[in-house]
Amino acid sequence: MPKTRKAHKTTSPSQKGTPKPGVPDFAKDIMNDCVQAKRASQQLAVSSTEIRHRALEAMAKALENSQSDIQFKNEIDIEVARKTGLTDALIDRLTLTPQRIRAMAQGLRDMMALPDPVGEIIEDRTQPNGMRLQKVRVPLGVVSIIYESRPNVTVDCAGLCIKSGNAVILRGGKEAINSNTALAHIIQNAAYEAGLPPGSIQLIQSTDRALIRDLVRMDKLIDLVIPRGGEEMVKAVRDMATVPVLSHGKGLCTVYIDKDADLGMAENIAFNAKTQRPGVCNAMETLLVHQDIAPQFIPGIIKRYEDAHVQIRGDAHVQNIGGDNILPAQEKDWDTEFLKLTAAIRVVPSLEEALVHIAKHSSRHSDSIVTNNPDTANRFLAEVDSAAVFHNASTRLHDGSV
Amino acid sequence: MPKTRKAHKTTSPSQKGTPKPGVPDFAKDIMNDCVQAKRASQQLAVSSTEIRHRALEAMAKALENSQSDIQFKNEIDIEVARKTGLTDALIDRLTLTPQRIRAMAQGLRDMMALPDPVGEIIEDRTQPNGMRLQKVRVPLGVVSIIYESRPNVTVDCAGLCIKSGNAVILRGGKEAINSNTALAHIIQNAAYEAGLPPGSIQLIQSTDRALIRDLVRMDKLIDLVIPRGGEEMVKAVRDMATVPVLSHGKGLCTVYIDKDADLGMAENIAFNAKTQRPGVCNAMETLLVHQDIAPQFIPGIIKRYEDAHVQIRGDAHVQNIGGDNILPAQEKDWDTEFLKLTAAIRVVPSLEEALVHIAKHSSRHSDSIVTNNPDTANRFLAEVDSAAVFHNASTRLHDGSV
Repeated sequence: MPKTRKAHKTTSPSQKGTPKPGVPDFAKDIMNDCVQAKRASQQLAVSSTEIRHRALEAMAKALENSQSDIQFKNEIDIEVARKTGLTDALIDRLTLTPQRIRAMAQGLRDMMALPDPVGEIIEDRTQPNGMRLQKVRVPLGVVSIIYESRPNVTVDCAGLCIKSGNAVILRGGKEAINSNTALAHIIQNAAYEAGLPPGSIQLIQSTDRALIRDLVRMDKLIDLVIPRGGEEMVKAVRDMATVPVLSHGKGLCTVYIDKDADLGMAENIAFNAKTQRPGVCNAMETLLVHQDIAPQFIPGIIKRYEDAHVQIRGDAHVQNIGGDNILPAQEKDWDTEFLKLTAAIRVVPSLEEALVHIAKHSSRHSDSIVTNNPDTANRFLAEVDSAAVFHNASTRLHDGSV
Repeated sequence: MPKTRKAHKTTSPSQKGTPKPGVPDFAKDIMNDCVQAKRASQQLAVSSTEIRHRALEAMAKALENSQSDIQFKNEIDIEVARKTGLTDALIDRLTLTPQRIRAMAQGLRDMMALPDPVGEIIEDRTQPNGMRLQKVRVPLGVVSIIYESRPNVTVDCAGLCIKSGNAVILRGGKEAINSNTALAHIIQNAAYEAGLPPGSIQLIQSTDRALIRDLVRMDKLIDLVIPRGGEEMVKAVRDMATVPVLSHGKGLCTVYIDKDADLGMAENIAFNAKTQRPGVCNAMETLLVHQDIAPQFIPGIIKRYEDAHVQIRGDAHVQNIGGDNILPAQEKDWDTEFLKLTAAIRVVPSLEEALVHIAKHSSRHSDSIVTNNPDTANRFLAEVDSAAVFHNASTRLHDGSV
């Protein structure tokens, strides 16, 4: 890590003042961070594209130059994770390899290629009374991101906020606290050296859950809270927050195979959506199959699922076709985000019934139809009210930087 | 009012079932309304522009045809208002004249001239992998509007929601309950007759404040809450809500007269912004004057304010120039939304000081600069972080349908 001036550092309550034992004064500490962030946001809002891009490049370079530092701190988190018995999958998510560090740096550089939203004029007209009216995109101000996931989120979110002219207050999960702290310090210093105001990027180092309540009620200083994590955490943030919350719930995604589908394509999509990465929110949980093509389609997909160790829960129709290995689907299976190699499969008599099923059970994250009939596709695309609706594509394509 | 089929009618708790005395089961009643609205919103989301415009025209016509009906019910509200001692100004806001009823109808027709946002494709590109990606504007779903103000808000909000393909749940103030109920029934029936689904427009008839808490926590059924009213009500909604809230706070607007201003224009703008309608959120509360032109500018504007019975609270500089009638401004005056013929006036040494004052005291609603220097204007427009920022124009121009 290059020698740098010390940028603003957010400390945990125990490092500041003399708080009463057992009564950490979160609100006051967080308030200080927020005031710093607010001040930084005012300067960021009028900063040039050039200076923000210079900061992103500096952050990328600093990460590349600090690889061993980052891995050293990351090792501490991994050690703790092993001792506390985290699963191998979770430890893998936590681990920062040289390749993953380079990918974080590349992610920051990729952001520089995106158009700058700050100052974009989205409407410009002259009113009948002669007044010229412009609608101009401006940054939100201070964005706070509360996350549980991998340490690369620290860099990813900081970069996106800087790119869009916002100050950011990060609050990561305790499993990655050492990694996150190292990453945050590196990018903070780099951003500051590149000319961004102190307070542009902050990481809350206390991992006490109680402080989240204080954080999400700082509506005079924080402009948006984005919780990234499990359903329970997202719900808790929404319940407590007075700051506006940009949230998603769970990801219960559906693929519907229409009677006019190309069955080869349908099989590939249903297989990819379920198995490519089953633990994430854009993976398929429920497969709906039109009854007219069920006899041709179901045996093939079940074979492929079984070869990939996917456990299947089917309705009576699916069980009839698929044989004894199919578990009977319970009503609750249609509302379950399995997040593993389990698929619920149902045969439907019509497009209408598929739409009703999706309206009732989908979490409105990503849903897909496979069909070669354009009218059917257009109806599905119009009527399904989800963040992303796909035609002849896997729900897995709903992702950040694709 | 034409004979019509009965559209969905939201009733107050006392009219439904046999609730325990003193324990109104708001949540259940509101839940029913919300379920109806959600169902309607699914149909509205895929409805054609034509059918929504047909409904707006039918609503407009029905209002024109029901003038005496509306005035009859409005008289009841006015009677109650007189008995409970509402001010003349408030009674005036409440009163529906034939002219105002025609204006409501015209407002609905004006909405038909606006472009239809539903289905607008705001991005359309093909990814390197061949996938075609479209971003399409879709309705929010169910919008709930909680308001205190004039009965025309009932028609205005219902119209805007229908125009944009949303179902609406209205909850107006108790002073206008009879007028709002009459208006809602007329437009509900007209919309239903024109082919919109039942439940598209609903008015909650209970005026019990306790139900608002239940309403704003229906996050599975309501997609957005918009509180329109005083600061206290808006804050209460934000505190209680789990549904996303689109809110504004108070309107503490500033006009800054720069040293390079056209002083004649400056006087007209400062006078208009303060006096044209002092009781509303886009009226000016604070006037900042650059010290270089203060001696020429202040006597003239003070004369005009005094002729219009505006009480002035000035800093020492303003008092020196303006004479004995100027009250001394207290620190709290810079943070006070007077909403009446009172203006706080301060002399500032520079544009920078004006920007600092606005960042500290403005409510970020509307702020204006008067200057002929384009660099100064551009800096003000870029740095002031308010919903609307004006150059050589009155803050009063920040309004709905201008």
